[in-house]
Amino acid sequence: MVPKSKIKFVKSLQVKKYRKQEQCFVVEGRKSVIELLQSDFETIWVAGTKDFINENLASLEKLNIEWCEAKEEELIAMGSFQSNQSALAIARIKPNVIPSTSSGFCLALDDIKDPGNLGTIIRTADWYGIHSLFASEESADFYNSKSISATMGSFCRVTVTYVDLKEWLSQAKLPVYGAFLDGEDVHSVNFGDRGVILIGSESHGIGRELEAMVTKKITIPRFGGAESLNAAMAAGIILDNLVRLKK
Amino acid sequence: MVPKSKIKFVKSLQVKKYRKQEQCFVVEGRKSVIELLQSDFETIWVAGTKDFINENLASLEKLNIEWCEAKEEELIAMGSFQSNQSALAIARIKPNVIPSTSSGFCLALDDIKDPGNLGTIIRTADWYGIHSLFASEESADFYNSKSISATMGSFCRVTVTYVDLKEWLSQAKLPVYGAFLDGEDVHSVNFGDRGVILIGSESHGIGRELEAMVTKKITIPRFGGAESLNAAMAAGIILDNLVRLKK
Repeated sequence: MVPKSKIKFVKSLQVKKYRKQEQCFVVEGRKSVIELLQSDFETIWVAGTKDFINENLASLEKLNIEWCEAKEEELIAMGSFQSNQSALAIARIKPNVIPSTSSGFCLALDDIKDPGNLGTIIRTADWYGIHSLFASEESADFYNSKSISATMGSFCRVTVTYVDLKEWLSQAKLPVYGAFLDGEDVHSVNFGDRGVILIGSESHGIGRELEAMVTKKITIPRFGGAESLNAAMAAGIILDNLVRLKK
Repeated sequence: MVPKSKIKFVKSLQVKKYRKQEQCFVVEGRKSVIELLQSDFETIWVAGTKDFINENLASLEKLNIEWCEAKEEELIAMGSFQSNQSALAIARIKPNVIPSTSSGFCLALDDIKDPGNLGTIIRTADWYGIHSLFASEESADFYNSKSISATMGSFCRVTVTYVDLKEWLSQAKLPVYGAFLDGEDVHSVNFGDRGVILIGSESHGIGRELEAMVTKKITIPRFGGAESLNAAMAAGIILDNLVRLKK
């Protein structure tokens, strides 16, 4: 049985203010918790069903992680999932340190507000081998349970750093690719060896100030009536066009 | 002011059972309601803020649509949006008639359960000029307010027909393309002139019975650690690869 104090603590981590204060976040579901245990995140506590604990006892003991057996109802009561037949974990938030701009490509997110979109972008970036995301400070929180769950475990392999995007872009001195309606057809863009793919917000696209920093405007060609694509979708389609050149 | 009985009726349409019984659905937000008024859907009733009504009075009168001025709080109370500064409408559900298989490509959805994913797929299909979707009977409801809102107005241009997919595919006699981990690289697939792009469910991919009906297995190449892509994302990336051949 999970102590009431623990249930209360886990619930409090649904709120960004408390995540920040405690420097902790919650990971839910079998696949994500197992990926967490194998990652370089510090896992603080795991609650799991009898089956989950039995299956993962060796790694919990090896990593010296405090754990607790929990019923399905308790996992649901603590977390954000509507059903959870496996596990939930508390992990330590990593410090927000700006990495030096490495080789290859990274993504920059200009006020992506929806945690589900952020999570989908992280999962897609991971699929295409992109490991660094830079998000404006107004973007959704990486550690929101909806973001974490939408990544389907990719939160362990992709780093999201919150920065003043304008300042960061001006210091990074990299080619910046941004999607607009009047850019070069993404099907024929010759992406170089390195650069930043800048993704605009769901409601306003790329902001004026950042638009001025885009060195190459690109366009996903449209064949029908929709006015725009979902921001995560646009990111994925651009990445698919980027990687096909690497092959 | 919106009559209480109307508020109650609109709220009831959040539930599929009542949508089916009344053959009505709800459309929310400025862009979607305006697109609805311009579409071939029958609009039954519109509630809008003073500004929205003023702006659209001519088309409301021309179409002889009953309308009512509403405050923001009333639009929120009736609908599913957290904020709505414009309008909400009730429209008539179209009959679920299986269209004859036309030329070109269509999408088939094998148990896409999330209404947001369904809406995103519809929006993306519309972007790429695909107007017919066929969904298994277990798929999310097209008329769910989350689906409608995620389409960003594309629900007016894309038809979703619910069918027994196995039966429909066997009668359609079209090439069927489906995404698997061991298929032909989507970057080099030679899509013909017509066919079906089959998209698997979020949790289980393409079911066994339908897998047997896939004539060409395709794969979106992976460069990183993610196990899979979101179903809507996979659909969009496949469509982008399909249309580039048409140019």
